[in-house]
Amino acid sequence: MKSYRLEPGRGLAGLTVHDQDEPEPGRGQVVVKIRANSIGSRDLLVLADNYVLPIRPKVVPGCEGAGEVVAVGEDVSRVKTGDRVAATVFPRWLDGPFRRENAAQLGTMIDGVLTEYAVLDEGGVVPVPEHLSFEEAAALPLAAVTAWNALTTGSALHPGATVLTLGSGAVSLFVLRFAKLAGARVLVTTSNAAKAERLRALGADEVINYRENPGWAEEVRALTDGLGVDRVVDATGPLEQSLKSVAPGGEVAFAGYWLSGTEGTTPIDPATLFMAGATLRRVATGSRAHFLELNRAVETHRLRPVIDQVFPFEQVPDAFKYCESGGGFGKVIISHT
Amino acid sequence: MKSYRLEPGRGLAGLTVHDQDEPEPGRGQVVVKIRANSIGSRDLLVLADNYVLPIRPKVVPGCEGAGEVVAVGEDVSRVKTGDRVAATVFPRWLDGPFRRENAAQLGTMIDGVLTEYAVLDEGGVVPVPEHLSFEEAAALPLAAVTAWNALTTGSALHPGATVLTLGSGAVSLFVLRFAKLAGARVLVTTSNAAKAERLRALGADEVINYRENPGWAEEVRALTDGLGVDRVVDATGPLEQSLKSVAPGGEVAFAGYWLSGTEGTTPIDPATLFMAGATLRRVATGSRAHFLELNRAVETHRLRPVIDQVFPFEQVPDAFKYCESGGGFGKVIISHT
Amino acid sequence: MKSYRLEPGRGLAGLTVHDQDEPEPGRGQVVVKIRANSIGSRDLLVLADNYVLPIRPKVVPGCEGAGEVVAVGEDVSRVKTGDRVAATVFPRWLDGPFRRENAAQLGTMIDGVLTEYAVLDEGGVVPVPEHLSFEEAAALPLAAVTAWNALTTGSALHPGATVLTLGSGAVSLFVLRFAKLAGARVLVTTSNAAKAERLRALGADEVINYRENPGWAEEVRALTDGLGVDRVVDATGPLEQSLKSVAPGGEVAFAGYWLSGTEGTTPIDPATLFMAGATLRRVATGSRAHFLELNRAVETHRLRPVIDQVFPFEQVPDAFKYCESGGGFGKVIISHT
Amino acid sequence: MKSYRLEPGRGLAGLTVHDQDEPEPGRGQVVVKIRANSIGSRDLLVLADNYVLPIRPKVVPGCEGAGEVVAVGEDVSRVKTGDRVAATVFPRWLDGPFRRENAAQLGTMIDGVLTEYAVLDEGGVVPVPEHLSFEEAAALPLAAVTAWNALTTGSALHPGATVLTLGSGAVSLFVLRFAKLAGARVLVTTSNAAKAERLRALGADEVINYRENPGWAEEVRALTDGLGVDRVVDATGPLEQSLKSVAPGGEVAFAGYWLSGTEGTTPIDPATLFMAGATLRRVATGSRAHFLELNRAVETHRLRPVIDQVFPFEQVPDAFKYCESGGGFGKVIISHT
Repeated sequence: MKSYRLEPGRGLAGLTVHDQDEPEPGRGQVVVKIRANSIGSRDLLVLADNYVLPIRPKVVPGCEGAGEVVAVGEDVSRVKTGDRVAATVFPRWLDGPFRRENAAQLGTMIDGVLTEYAVLDEGGVVPVPEHLSFEEAAALPLAAVTAWNALTTGSALHPGATVLTLGSGAVSLFVLRFAKLAGARVLVTTSNAAKAERLRALGADEVINYRENPGWAEEVRALTDGLGVDRVVDATGPLEQSLKSVAPGGEVAFAGYWLSGTEGTTPIDPATLFMAGATLRRVATGSRAHFLELNRAVETHRLRPVIDQVFPFEQVPDAFKYCESGGGFGKVIISHT
Repeated sequence: MKSYRLEPGRGLAGLTVHDQDEPEPGRGQVVVKIRANSIGSRDLLVLADNYVLPIRPKVVPGCEGAGEVVAVGEDVSRVKTGDRVAATVFPRWLDGPFRRENAAQLGTMIDGVLTEYAVLDEGGVVPVPEHLSFEEAAALPLAAVTAWNALTTGSALHPGATVLTLGSGAVSLFVLRFAKLAGARVLVTTSNAAKAERLRALGADEVINYRENPGWAEEVRALTDGLGVDRVVDATGPLEQSLKSVAPGGEVAFAGYWLSGTEGTTPIDPATLFMAGATLRRVATGSRAHFLELNRAVETHRLRPVIDQVFPFEQVPDAFKYCESGGGFGKVIISHT
Repeated sequence: MKSYRLEPGRGLAGLTVHDQDEPEPGRGQVVVKIRANSIGSRDLLVLADNYVLPIRPKVVPGCEGAGEVVAVGEDVSRVKTGDRVAATVFPRWLDGPFRRENAAQLGTMIDGVLTEYAVLDEGGVVPVPEHLSFEEAAALPLAAVTAWNALTTGSALHPGATVLTLGSGAVSLFVLRFAKLAGARVLVTTSNAAKAERLRALGADEVINYRENPGWAEEVRALTDGLGVDRVVDATGPLEQSLKSVAPGGEVAFAGYWLSGTEGTTPIDPATLFMAGATLRRVATGSRAHFLELNRAVETHRLRPVIDQVFPFEQVPDAFKYCESGGGFGKVIISHT
Repeated sequence: MKSYRLEPGRGLAGLTVHDQDEPEPGRGQVVVKIRANSIGSRDLLVLADNYVLPIRPKVVPGCEGAGEVVAVGEDVSRVKTGDRVAATVFPRWLDGPFRRENAAQLGTMIDGVLTEYAVLDEGGVVPVPEHLSFEEAAALPLAAVTAWNALTTGSALHPGATVLTLGSGAVSLFVLRFAKLAGARVLVTTSNAAKAERLRALGADEVINYRENPGWAEEVRALTDGLGVDRVVDATGPLEQSLKSVAPGGEVAFAGYWLSGTEGTTPIDPATLFMAGATLRRVATGSRAHFLELNRAVETHRLRPVIDQVFPFEQVPDAFKYCESGGGFGKVIISHT
């Protein structure tokens, strides 16, 4: 069976295909025949060795994958052969807050899922909602779980609350859709008229053009009775306008992929932080419990993730190049057919 | 101006109309020309002196009313003359949990709103959502606030969660609708096919006939993968089936009007309570903050309360008789025209 | 090596000693040489087959044990050979709320720790605080974890809060001590003057004689400005006085061992439940995360559990008989020497 | 009766004494004969017009005062003549989170308490714990309430948790003492050996010299098993070392007086924010409910605030000069004798 493996820091040149025997599950493990993956900006950072975590040399990259259980080890009770499952990004983070002892992450510290067969802990996989294809299921483990964590972990979000999400990246699209499911009024930023249309079609109540108005926080306040929004999910940085957009007592949840780019070098004025009168919370993916709960919402509402392009497993390098070019709308998927 | 006044314990015979001068607002107070009221089972208990709180003799009854601010006292900053407002049931319960020092309740301990002009604390009124008539606004202060408190105060309710609400009383209808706004899957009990239809039209995902199946908790479990629901709102009693319907770690929020009826005499088996593995929480209306937040949801979603019958202010006794007969669907409204 | 094994429903007659080979750890497992156990009323219920969970025939009983890691399986990273550890009662309940998939419990559904060597999941053991002996460490897994869960899971307990705990059973003694660490004012019930002295020595601010005053909730109210206590931990039943002792908005956390006795047959009046205006929450032991957190508190404050009697491993039946006789103060310990 | 009044922006030169008639209480108000005040860095910012809020010209300054109720207006039920009370800094912020409609603050937007008689809302005063003198009671409304809010509003603080507080300013001293009451292990920074001694005497478990080691976050990590502390309360800025000291999932609560000084111009590196993996929360005093709850803790534990110097009411300008000189330990008090 074939797996991609990675020499970190060399970009795409560090990505090679290796052949090896099909794996056997140990006690408490399952073997999943991977049927689809998703990739994104996190993986580009990993290839460039610009990621926040150390990358193990020769690691199998990829933290988003879905497939079928083809073998189960001893003492496995949560899943059985034939089950359709998706991998969780942090296989040991089962529930509760993130803790150091659960820090092992797929595709960086331990082998990931850009492979034909993956050996995973039984706790490191969750069932795939029935109405989703493997390609759709592969779109969830990173961006959707991050969005769910961002919206559900802090103070409760009630119907009628206002949520601002930045841009049309993968996390932001899930924030938009989950926030709409929760009855929120959702504001989204974009710089692109075509994307604005698609955001509205997905339910955005207000779309703000951040390029036309760099001080767009004022627009947010004008749209919220001068008060600002209850929640911001900021996966783009550099946080300043987010801090100016949030209502006192509100929350800015931020993910940090932008820290490797030029936005990440913009320092934050502590006075802006203070005047926000809000809580700033770092979000990093989520637990198995987050994933199970979001799956239930996805299933209840027959939600389908937005997919941008699908590439065959053999063309993963092309898929990465496509990611690097930016500009898509929705997740980039790898299909094993 | 005319006010109803009450001799508790005499039922409708204790209800009389009194004439007096239009009131003046003191510091921090407003005078509201009441344009609509709502009445319900709570008021019947008050008339019968079966209510959980002591009733002040000669009190103006009624805790649900909406109208127009016609005068404001010194130091009033939250509202101004001409504002459309609804009264809050506990005028001193502004925010946070219920506390003893905020226990004064309209229509029992202090004068209520079955009157042409009411003097109210500025903190004891909230703005009426623009799209609502006074009749619709009058439907909210008791049942909608109780439903909102039941759904939003305990652990957070996320999209895809399961909510069970009992019957088609006023609180239950609001629970159904607010839970749907929050993205929940909602199960409702009823014994009546026509009501079942109306419940489905309001969004109920599952309607359970509790008369055909007195042990209907089994049906709830069958509909929830054997697990039970995350939340029950029980405003009918006697709690046993609710406790059998809730998932471990879930919550049963209960309101207690049923305690005056035959249901209230059914004792609870502690083993049922234990096996539920859940939290049982008493709910009693809610604060100004609850009301403001629900108004925002009502406004965002252009929600309109279900109104059953409208009676003129002069026919309040007839309205009470109608309430006593049971069987309606939605709130009973008093209109001052 | 020797293990006790159990035929449920036969009481002590069902308890026999078996000899078998020393076990080997599988992947993710450790072998612990048990150095001390603790037993209590839960185990008596298990012996009698009166427990809330089904008992597997021939199961190794006992859910409280501490010892030394003597072997580790593949992929074990949390502990190493030589570590002093205590077992957790629910080895799969690592963090977050209790969930069905983590229901396996030591000593009922899966083999427990009344044995010389136990094979345990690496996530199913926690380090023993340095200042504790194995005998002291064995006192924590059930009663202390239940007490910690009862005090820390619901609404936060702040210094100056009032906590009521019932009796001087094992859970209650830990509630008393943990609540004192948290800065609470603690009220305890007892019927025994000698125990009252010991409770005061452990920090009880008020000791109430429940036998002299069966309606002792009045005494609780008199001692709390008429308001009632913020928290009750009730591990004795039948809840009525607890519900009358709790302040509006407060919480009664209850554990349910009493349900097998005569107290368990006393039904609860729903009006008492309603008038309490509080939250009633079932507590059942706790997670690995609870245990780790309580260990930190135990370590920070050099707290030592109260030990009543120590029996050698060979005299477990005598230890059970001693438990049945009641009347002790502190945990009954089994020592392997 | 005499009141200080203020022309903002002129420093001490803007502070003058005015004479006027003793005030009468309106409906819902009380008149308090002020017996003691406290002043601090917040007041220096107000005098300099460097405060975050606009200052009303001719305002009576001072937000910390305690005294005796000498008159009550109509409809006052919470207090009576003769009661010993302290004023709350935000008289309309009674409970729940801070909201815009409760923003009026003593001594900036509305008249404060550097006066002989103050007219206050009945909800804007809280009882003084019996064991405290007026001088001690006057030390609580700003610094103690801020410290209490910082420690109790976010995620719950359990015994054995680690708390870091910066410096020996008024807020920090209360954080130290309240955190000790809650069973925490407390780390404090200082640059001064004499203060280090006093901090230890108040219960500090670890004292860190931030001057000797500007990168003292490393020392915090070394003292906490490499993990960092659960909670930081930072009332000094510039946040960087705090963010490096907090454990993943922990919280940095910050108050912002430092923003007017040179520390406030130090921008925050977003990577530091991200790597902290924690929540950053702005804290601004607290509500009446916070104050009542802290009073209960103060009363239960017979805690007495640390008082540095006491000045007579006539020498308020000297007291301000003393404040400006820095270097004290504890609160600066004004006594009306």
